Amino acid sequence: MGRTSEAKNKILLAAQSLLGQRGYSSLGVAEICKAAGVPKGSFYYFFESKEALALAVIDMHWAAERHDWESILEADDEPLRRLRHLLEATEARQREGQGSYGAVLGCMFGNLSLEMSNQADAIRLRLQEIFETEVNMVDAVIQEAQERGEVTLSDTRDTARSVVAQLEGQVLFAKLYNNPSQLDTLWPSCRALLGVHDDQAIAALA
Amino acid sequence: MGRTSEAKNKILLAAQSLLGQRGYSSLGVAEICKAAGVPKGSFYYFFESKEALALAVIDMHWAAERHDWESILEADDEPLRRLRHLLEATEARQREGQGSYGAVLGCMFGNLSLEMSNQADAIRLRLQEIFETEVNMVDAVIQEAQERGEVTLSDTRDTARSVVAQLEGQVLFAKLYNNPSQLDTLWPSCRALLGVHDDQAIAALA
Repeated sequence: MGRTSEAKNKILLAAQSLLGQRGYSSLGVAEICKAAGVPKGSFYYFFESKEALALAVIDMHWAAERHDWESILEADDEPLRRLRHLLEATEARQREGQGSYGAVLGCMFGNLSLEMSNQADAIRLRLQEIFETEVNMVDAVIQEAQERGEVTLSDTRDTARSVVAQLEGQVLFAKLYNNPSQLDTLWPSCRALLGVHDDQAIAALA
Repeated sequence: MGRTSEAKNKILLAAQSLLGQRGYSSLGVAEICKAAGVPKGSFYYFFESKEALALAVIDMHWAAERHDWESILEADDEPLRRLRHLLEATEARQREGQGSYGAVLGCMFGNLSLEMSNQADAIRLRLQEIFETEVNMVDAVIQEAQERGEVTLSDTRDTARSVVAQLEGQVLFAKLYNNPSQLDTLWPSCRALLGVHDDQAIAALA
């Protein structure tokens, strides 16, 4: 039992790395098993298909990212500072990825949304759920800031969606230019989306 | 000569359609030739490789999109209205695509940036040039608005980049949810990035 779950775990980790670097379509089961050091025959013992593996990788990747998001967004700090920390952590993560792989890999969920969402319904639905949750998490923080009078927004959820869209768009540029510094303007952009001017922001974050 | 360029054109159009729907990695030369109704043998007469074809498709697609962007952004109208029209045209184009293909296909350049940019240097460089030009075009309009006193920005180019990032991020959502209405908030979000409040915007656009 220990050995089988070890093999499954090796496949998941190899697939996570390859999926992050190369996307879904160009990957084959044989290549994943080779990278995992697991015989190809055992793949279908654990996963019905490449798509089933991709879903499991998405879930594993999201569990880790969600944990990161929660520990930042639910920290004991002022709401706008927490949001700022989330965006700074995004840049740090892309910088780390570049250090490990030599290339900014971007956001796995954004990558798969553009590559796969109109080709595999199960993957589309899972990615929708993830982005929905991300927007809800950001919305909760913006609502707190609204209740404290730090922002005045007509629809906090629309703004939360724009913040996540801005993150995805700027991560796209960071990947395209292979340069995490593209994300330097992420917080100023999101502050503008929140309608917070420099001076107010400085006061709010003091 | 007429017949050979007709065959080349058929390959380009078939590849544009398939690339938009399915991305790069999952496409094969044989499939493209079949869709184009052109014998596979003739493919390499026109294109050195699948990558060379992709570059030609990107150029063709950009020539058309650039023409659209220019006719909107250089129209005889107030700068912020022109920018708003560009974003509305983006939604209209995604809606049209959904009508034709049954799915929101997103932005070909954003799709390829996330799928391909860390795998093919020539494609990465071409996409960088395209986004650079898009940001410059948006920046020119924002600078006009700045000169007219309609916006007060410390760095118009940073804001232009955030506007294009917002567009790409929201187009990602439109594709993921297969719903062009996700783009309804594109103009309000970009207005916030420009630091223009509702009332000011109404005055500016009157």
